[in-house]
Parts: sequence; C-alpha cells; structure tokens
Amino acid sequence: MTVAEKINALRFLMNEKNIHAYIITSSDPHMSEYVPERWTSRQWISGFTGSAGTVVITENNAGLWTDSRYFLQAENQLKDSNITLFKMGTANTPSPFEWLAQELPVDANVGFDGTCFSVTQTRDLKHKLGNLDIHIIEEFDLIGEIWKNRPALPNGVIFDHELKYSGNTRYAKLTKIRKEMAASDCNYHFVGSMDDVAWIFNLRGSDVDYNPLALAYGVIGKESATVYLKAETVSHSFTQSLKEDGISIAHYDQIFNDLEEIPGSANVMLDSNRTNLRAFNSISANIIEKENPSQLLKSLKNEVEIKGMKNAMKKDGIALTHFYYWLEENLGKTKITEFTVMEKLKEFRSQQEDFKGESFGTICGYKDHGAHPHYSTTQESNVEIKPEGMLLIDSGAQFLDGTTDITRTIPLGDLNEEEKLDFTLVLKGMIQLAMAVFPVGTRGCNLDILARMDLWKNYRNFGHGTGHGVGCFLNVHEGPQSIRQELKDQAIMAGMITSNEPGLYRVGKYGIRHENLILCKKAESSEFGDFLNFETITLCHFETKGINTDILSPNEKIWLNNYHQKVYDILSPELDEKHKAWLRNKTKAI
Amino acid sequence: MTVAEKINALRFLMNEKNIHAYIITSSDPHMSEYVPERWTSRQWISGFTGSAGTVVITENNAGLWTDSRYFLQAENQLKDSNITLFKMGTANTPSPFEWLAQELPVDANVGFDGTCFSVTQTRDLKHKLGNLDIHIIEEFDLIGEIWKNRPALPNGVIFDHELKYSGNTRYAKLTKIRKEMAASDCNYHFVGSMDDVAWIFNLRGSDVDYNPLALAYGVIGKESATVYLKAETVSHSFTQSLKEDGISIAHYDQIFNDLEEIPGSANVMLDSNRTNLRAFNSISANIIEKENPSQLLKSLKNEVEIKGMKNAMKKDGIALTHFYYWLEENLGKTKITEFTVMEKLKEFRSQQEDFKGESFGTICGYKDHGAHPHYSTTQESNVEIKPEGMLLIDSGAQFLDGTTDITRTIPLGDLNEEEKLDFTLVLKGMIQLAMAVFPVGTRGCNLDILARMDLWKNYRNFGHGTGHGVGCFLNVHEGPQSIRQELKDQAIMAGMITSNEPGLYRVGKYGIRHENLILCKKAESSEFGDFLNFETITLCHFETKGINTDILSPNEKIWLNNYHQKVYDILSPELDEKHKAWLRNKTKAI
Repeated sequence: MTVAEKINALRFLMNEKNIHAYIITSSDPHMSEYVPERWTSRQWISGFTGSAGTVVITENNAGLWTDSRYFLQAENQLKDSNITLFKMGTANTPSPFEWLAQELPVDANVGFDGTCFSVTQTRDLKHKLGNLDIHIIEEFDLIGEIWKNRPALPNGVIFDHELKYSGNTRYAKLTKIRKEMAASDCNYHFVGSMDDVAWIFNLRGSDVDYNPLALAYGVIGKESATVYLKAETVSHSFTQSLKEDGISIAHYDQIFNDLEEIPGSANVMLDSNRTNLRAFNSISANIIEKENPSQLLKSLKNEVEIKGMKNAMKKDGIALTHFYYWLEENLGKTKITEFTVMEKLKEFRSQQEDFKGESFGTICGYKDHGAHPHYSTTQESNVEIKPEGMLLIDSGAQFLDGTTDITRTIPLGDLNEEEKLDFTLVLKGMIQLAMAVFPVGTRGCNLDILARMDLWKNYRNFGHGTGHGVGCFLNVHEGPQSIRQELKDQAIMAGMITSNEPGLYRVGKYGIRHENLILCKKAESSEFGDFLNFETITLCHFETKGINTDILSPNEKIWLNNYHQKVYDILSPELDEKHKAWLRNKTKAI
Repeated sequence: MTVAEKINALRFLMNEKNIHAYIITSSDPHMSEYVPERWTSRQWISGFTGSAGTVVITENNAGLWTDSRYFLQAENQLKDSNITLFKMGTANTPSPFEWLAQELPVDANVGFDGTCFSVTQTRDLKHKLGNLDIHIIEEFDLIGEIWKNRPALPNGVIFDHELKYSGNTRYAKLTKIRKEMAASDCNYHFVGSMDDVAWIFNLRGSDVDYNPLALAYGVIGKESATVYLKAETVSHSFTQSLKEDGISIAHYDQIFNDLEEIPGSANVMLDSNRTNLRAFNSISANIIEKENPSQLLKSLKNEVEIKGMKNAMKKDGIALTHFYYWLEENLGKTKITEFTVMEKLKEFRSQQEDFKGESFGTICGYKDHGAHPHYSTTQESNVEIKPEGMLLIDSGAQFLDGTTDITRTIPLGDLNEEEKLDFTLVLKGMIQLAMAVFPVGTRGCNLDILARMDLWKNYRNFGHGTGHGVGCFLNVHEGPQSIRQELKDQAIMAGMITSNEPGLYRVGKYGIRHENLILCKKAESSEFGDFLNFETITLCHFETKGINTDILSPNEKIWLNNYHQKVYDILSPELDEKHKAWLRNKTKAI
C-alpha cells in the first residue's frame, strides 16, 4: 500500500465510525522511549521513520509534526505523501492539538487508540480543544484494522535480574512501595511503565531496542502482586522465585479485565504520565494519582548497583581505550566512516563480560554532523573520517551489572583558537559540575548553571539539558532527577547517577560534547547542614590536545589530572603493554 | 486592659456570635509588609510586638505563632498572658491552621476579619481544615469592637511622584495594564496592594513606616480608572492632573460598594495574593485571577528611574562614606552603641537632597547580634561597640529619586583565619553573582548558586534568599523576581534591580553579609542568543582588611579593584579633602 492508499483506507473507516479526526502517535501502551515494531503506527501510515512524530488525519487534511532533528528527513520522506509537515518549535507553528482546535467544528469526534495514549496526553488534548465540546473516541485501533502483516507483539525471553546485580529483593522493593501506598491509603498500585515493572520485579527482557525491558504491566496489592507478561517466555525457576515473593504471573492481555474487577470501593494509585487511557478507563475504583514510587526508589542506587555500575564503567573504559587506540592507529591508513566507527565500537564493547548490547544508538558525528546533538548516521549521510576536524561520539552499553553513557569529542587534526576555546569552555563546565558541593535538597535546576557559566561568559550556550538519570542495566534515560534549567522540584540525592554532558554546537561546522556519569554521594556535615558531592564514575581519557590550558583554573587542572590518573590506575591493569603505554601518554598531567 | 482581659472580652463576643475560633493576623487590608498602627490587632491582643505573628483564640486555648527571629522576644512578652508560644519551623510544630484542624470539632465556625485576610490565606485555611466541614465567618472585626482608642486610619499627605522621577505617565502605565486586561478579556482590574496603586498612579504617601505609600485601592476600567483614597489629603492640582489622565478619586471606604456594583456579566482581573477577602466577596462579576500586571511592569525600571536610582546610590554612598569615616575616627574614643550607629547613619543620610526617610529599620548587629539576619536592636539588647569583632550594618534610604539597601560588615579589630575565610567566601559569592552573564529567560533560582558555590565547597551556607527586587522610591522589598534556591518561574530581566546579599551566620559569634544592588542589563548577542549581565549600582567601599586575598581568584580581584575605583571616581568629587583621602585609602587596589 502507498501512503495515500493507507490514508484513504483510514478515512473510509473514520467515516464509517463518524470520526472527524484521528491521531496517530509513536507511543506504545507503556509510554516507552523505544517502541516495539508493532506500535510503529505513525511510521507505517506516513513513511516518516524518525523517532519522534505525530500524525493527524482529518477528512481533508493530513499533518505530521516533528522536531528540528528530523526536518530534513521528514521533508524527504513525506515528499509524495500529501501529508503537510509541521515543524515544531518554529515560529507560528501550532502544536497538533492546537491545529486540531482550529480545524475541527464544535461537537466533532476525535479518535485515537486509547491503548497508546497516556492519561496526561488525553487531558492535554481535551484542554486544547476545551471550547469545542469535542468527543473523544478512544476505543478503536483503526491502524490495526488496515495494517496487514502488522508485526506481532514481541515475545523475548524474560529473565531474573539476579540479586547479585540488583542488590535488593523483590520483596524488599514491594515493601517500600506498599509503604507509599499506605501513606496515600491505597489498596492497589497499577504500574504501567516497563522500566518500573522491570525494576520492581527484578526482571529483564529484550522486547525493545537498547533497553532491556519486557512488555509488562504490574498490579501491586497490599499483600499480593501480579505481573502481566507473555507467560510462555518465563522459566519455571523464575516463576517459582516470583511465587515465593507473593507475586503471581498473569497473561499480558489480561490486564484490562483485571483492572475492571478491582472493587469500586478500593483506592488505586497510578501515574497518569505512565498509564494508558484504556487502562485508566478500565478502573472503576477511586484513582489516586501519584508519580510511580519506583521512579524515585529506582534512581537511588544501592551499594550492589553502584559496584555493578562502576564495574560496567571499567569494562566500558577498556573497550573505549581499545577503540580510540584503534582509531588513532588506523586513521588515514584505512578507510574509516561514521558507520565503521559505530561497528568497531560495538565490537570492542561486545568483547567485555556480560555485554548485552548498546544502551542507545551511537551518535557518531564527524565535523558538521556533530553539530546536531541527536545526529543519527544514515546510508546517505555517512562520511569518511579523515585526520582533520572534530569527531563527536556519544555511545553506551548495557552490561548485566550496569549501563553506560559517554561522550568524547576527538580533535583529529590541529584545532584553531576558536575551536580550542569552545572545546575548553565545554570542558570547564563539565569539570565545574563534577566538582560541585551542595546541601541536601538542592535541585538539578539549581545546579545546572555550573556547567554553563563559563560558556555564558563567552556568549555561548547549548540547547539541551546537562544531565539525565541513568538506570542500572535499565533505561539509559530515567528520572525523576535531571540537571537542566527548566524548573523541576526534585532534589539530587545520594545514590543517584546522572549524566554530566554540556556541549556546544556550531551548525555547519562542528559539535563538541563532553559527557561523564556522576554519582551523588554524601560529603561532609557541618553546623550549616549535610552536604553532598559527585564522584565521576565514567572511566575514559579526554583528548588534551583540544584544551587551551591557559583558561583552565588551577582547580580545574587539578581535577583533570586527578581524573586522568584515576582512569589510568583503574584501566591499565587490564590492558596489554601497547595499550597501557598509549593510555599513559593520553592521561599524562597537563 | 490586660491581655487576659482582652482575650476574655473577645471570647465573650465569640460566644455571642457562635464562633469557635478567631484568628488575628498582622495584616492590613492591602497585605502590606509594614502595617499602619490601626491594624496591629495581633500586637494589641497579645502584647507581642514582633513584626510577624499570628494569634488564634479558641474557647479554651490561645496560641501565638512566630518565627525564629522572635522566639526569645515572644517568650518574654507572652510570659503572663496564658498564650502558648508555637515556634514555627521547629520540629513537630503545627502551623496555626494545622493546629486548628486538630483543635476544632466538625462543623465549627472559624472567624476572622475578612478585610485583613487575603483570598489565598482563606483558601489555605479551608484546605487545612478540609475534612472538618468548617464554616468561615469573615464579616466580624471583633478586635475593633473591644479595642477602645484604636488608632484611626492614617491620613498622610498624598503627593504626585513627578514625571522627572517616575519616567512614565499614568496614562502610559494604564495603557500597558489595559493591554494585559484585554489579553484576558477583562473589563475591570481591581488593585488591592498599596505599592501597585502607588506605581500605577504615580502617587506617594506616608501612611506606613519606611515605604512611601498611601492607603489606597484602585479599579481600572477599559477607559476610566478610580483610585480610592482619603480624598481630603490630595491637593487640587494633583486631583486635576489625575482627572486629565481619566482617573477619578473616590473615598477609600467607598471601594466595597463600588465593587458590588460592577455588573455581574463583567470580567474582573485581580491578584488573589493581594486582595482581601472582603473585597473579593464584594464582587459578583466573573473573577479572573492573575498576578497584578503592575508587579512585573514595576520591576522593569525605565531610563529615568535608573538614573534616579543611580543618583540615590551616589547620595547614599556619600552619606555612608561620612558615616564610616566618623565611626573609624570615634571608635574607642567616645561611647558608641548600636543605637548611636543607627542614629548617626540616619543623620548623615538626612543631609542628602530629597531624603524622605529610611527604607527599613536599620539592622545594626555587633558581634553575636550580627548572627541574627533580621536582628533589631532593643533597649535591652543595645551594646557598646568596641575596636574588636565585626559589626554588620544593613540599612537603606528613601530618596525622591530612588530607594537604597546596602549591607557592609566591618572588621573593627583583627580577624582570625576562620573569620577572614568566612568574610572572603561571602565576598566571593557576592562578586560571582555580580559578574554573572546569562541568556534571556534565566531565572533567579538558576542563578542563586553563584552566590553560594564557594561557601558550599567549604561546607558553609546561609539560610535566606540571596536577592529581592527593590522599588524606585517605593518598597525596598518588591517582586516579582528574586534570587534564591526556591523554584520561581520568573526570569531576571533587563531593567530589574535586585539585591545581591549572601551572608554567613555563626550563632553566638558573628554574622557577615555583603550586599549591593545590581541592575540587570542587556549584554551581547551572539548566534547562541541574547545575553544579560549585571551592573552593580550601590556605591560604597568594602573593608579589605577582612579579606584573605589568597583565596580570591584573579577575576574576583579585578572585579573588586574596578568596583573600588568606580566608587572612588563617583563619590570623591562630592567629598572634602579629608574624606577624599580617607576613601582613596579604603578603595586602593589589593
């Protein structure tokens, strides 16, 4: 079917059901960052394959909304589709819901698949259409009716994330969550997001790219709990082990029926950002809306997780040392492209113990490609890398014991003064945040300026957040904390692992980003309170030839030299002589 | 009447009116920081004279709530009153409304004078008592019924704040406000706060201490506007001038009737934090709640106001130079106490042109008194100042052309290493904030850490905000901006004048605070956006003998030397030779 044929088929069904507009998102029922192929409905109907986008079809119009990362790609892919591209974030461009508010008459019916629409999204839609007396029709998955050969539900193996990695039993985690439930007088807690289910029940799967997740819901009662899975993929021993913790397994498709059967008098806690509308509407009991307690609990890594994460960093550091050595040895001798880099990096990582895949698609941006913070190499964009300019590589791995995320920017030739200044200002920001000391209660938005103040003094800035939470053999992007300018009332707490990744992007020229992961720890206490600081746990050298040492402060130099010594001390025992000598040189004091 | 007799009389009235609890605050009908004597009901009933406190009387109990500044004073003043002191902010102390929720039965009647209770306070009370089905009785001013010889409404002279000071006509200001009204489809805007009325109508008065305000309300329509005043105090020429701008004057007491008469179909914009409950309840029209638009408009000083503020800083700087010279010359020779300092400082300021009084009660804290950020000298606490220890002086002036607020901490003897470190760390914080460069949109809570980061690295901190807005011949504390850790979604914008006042307090030893006012200005623009910075406009030297110069960075030293040069350059032409030579020495480069 062509895109036009698909849209025609959809309009036929819309007409049949008296639906005036139909919304197709990139969401799955769990509001995931990475979506199983079955739910790539928006890609299927529009032909646009970017990771973010929304399609809205009305009787006479069709629109696709995406952000600046994908403007060019969307223009190309929508060329013969009759779908209008709306460039989000550009002046005078309405959001999809705002556009609908202009397009629709009063009393219209707006449809979407409620299984893939969160409660919060639905409210936003209703709010935007507030004056129109719109009817929401959420029960029809119209794409499902016209998509022949739609991919089946993924059905990967589900396995126990053993106590030696998780450091905390299912039972202990359930106890903490039940404490939160009791505080809000709740009998049940519905868990709609896959990473929360994975963390609570110490289970992992392989149903989506990059995140070791299984399609799953959870319902936690006061004494029992049920996890909703594709049961045939669970081993007998794991099933037994769940049973011992009072956890039963039910079939994934059973969730909606079971939610309906919760007594009307009960109180059910759920997270409206992480609950799909169909699940929400299945509940006739009282709903108490709260952020999933596992969001915060999950972010506070225990000693076993911290040990695992540090071991993952070490393995990653060894792989990265091998990789950067290989790059330096071969650059200008054999043909190396962005794709080669991505493959080689994965190859070195896969040689490390308990490697389970990459934690996200590697961003390998050479020269001007680096200026797009979320650049993704395609067959068309792939270029050869030469001994000149800068190469930005943002990549990460999933190991059984931890998840990594690291960015280095490599000067492949000599840098001019402006390039060196940019490189060094970004590094100063990263170091200033790494050196922070702050009282208990300080939020990410209070800290963010540390990574920017030297850039700002030079009238430079970067347009993304400085830090996101990182899971332990879980999602590389997790909450609830972040380090960014936007207000969020969440303190950075001891045990949280967050990225520290300031950057600088000059469109058409180059991009620079330096990224380490930082672990928040208790520092000292005084009459002025309890203070926290960060330990940088990523282990990989920075290319010091990019640095203008004149503008590093004495403390910044000390930090960098100490860091490099630590990288060498931890990695070198695992390296052969050739790599060891090379790393010694890369980590020598400035 | 003794306190006990007053409370008995109140209980008699409460009983008569079937009121189970009566709340007495320190508020006036305008939610002001400084309250006319007529509305010091809480002081009158309890005998406690601190500036912040709430009294709640029930049939059998009486409580007073105040904060740590006043614990000692309240204990003394409540000694024989049978009123229980609740120390706010200490562990397990309920707030007055939480305490009421514990004390009251279901279906009780809670009374207060609705004229002196804001809409927001009322909602907070209802929320705290939510489960009790409480009835709010707001129409009785019971204190008024038992307070014989209650002070009358103040009736100070009201005068035009001339265009040469305000820089903007009433008409221009009303036009801006009407634009905001139109954006929210409002026919009327009720203005309940005195400083907003003063700014909008370019009028000033003398009805409260320290702030040049007149008792007033305002109602702005689409084409006309009315200001509610004690009309007999307005000159004929000023009345004429108001009339020319389409502004009529009505009697202060007329406001509630006029609000009642707004047609029910109209939309009325008001600020629920700045509107008393009686005014709110008088309106039968639709209420659209917004922060008073004049809050933001007032904070964005125009060129005339900026010139006036800078001239006020210069006059203040001359007075302060005279004062600190006098202090140094006389210390150890004549008896000087905290009170002497306060009087002398006021005397020097009053010698300057257009001086209209102090902008708040001077905080003059010698040695351990300085450790209380809001210390207020009393007859009992007043001490003699000797050539040893540190003296913290936080003071300010009202001039017709501007308002000042400055803190200096003076080492009167030699400081030990810890004292010098504290003194210098606070100074570093003040300088780092003063040197900030930041993109348009940056909020105070994003910037606050600049003033704290060096303190935090040494496990030190201070427990108050870093900066508040300052009016132009208006309130020394104004919004909407602030620089503090607490989240507030208000950018620091070009034209705003904010204080920059980090501190450090060691109870029983000393307090340190360094405070200047900083003007936000446009800096440069680049491909990365438009950037802002600060100009420090306060003009007074710092005592460099308190500084450990080893821990100032090169940039901090340059900032301080440049600042001192500027102080000398601007003030010295106005000084006689003796003071000039003295200031030259005080401002010499370090």
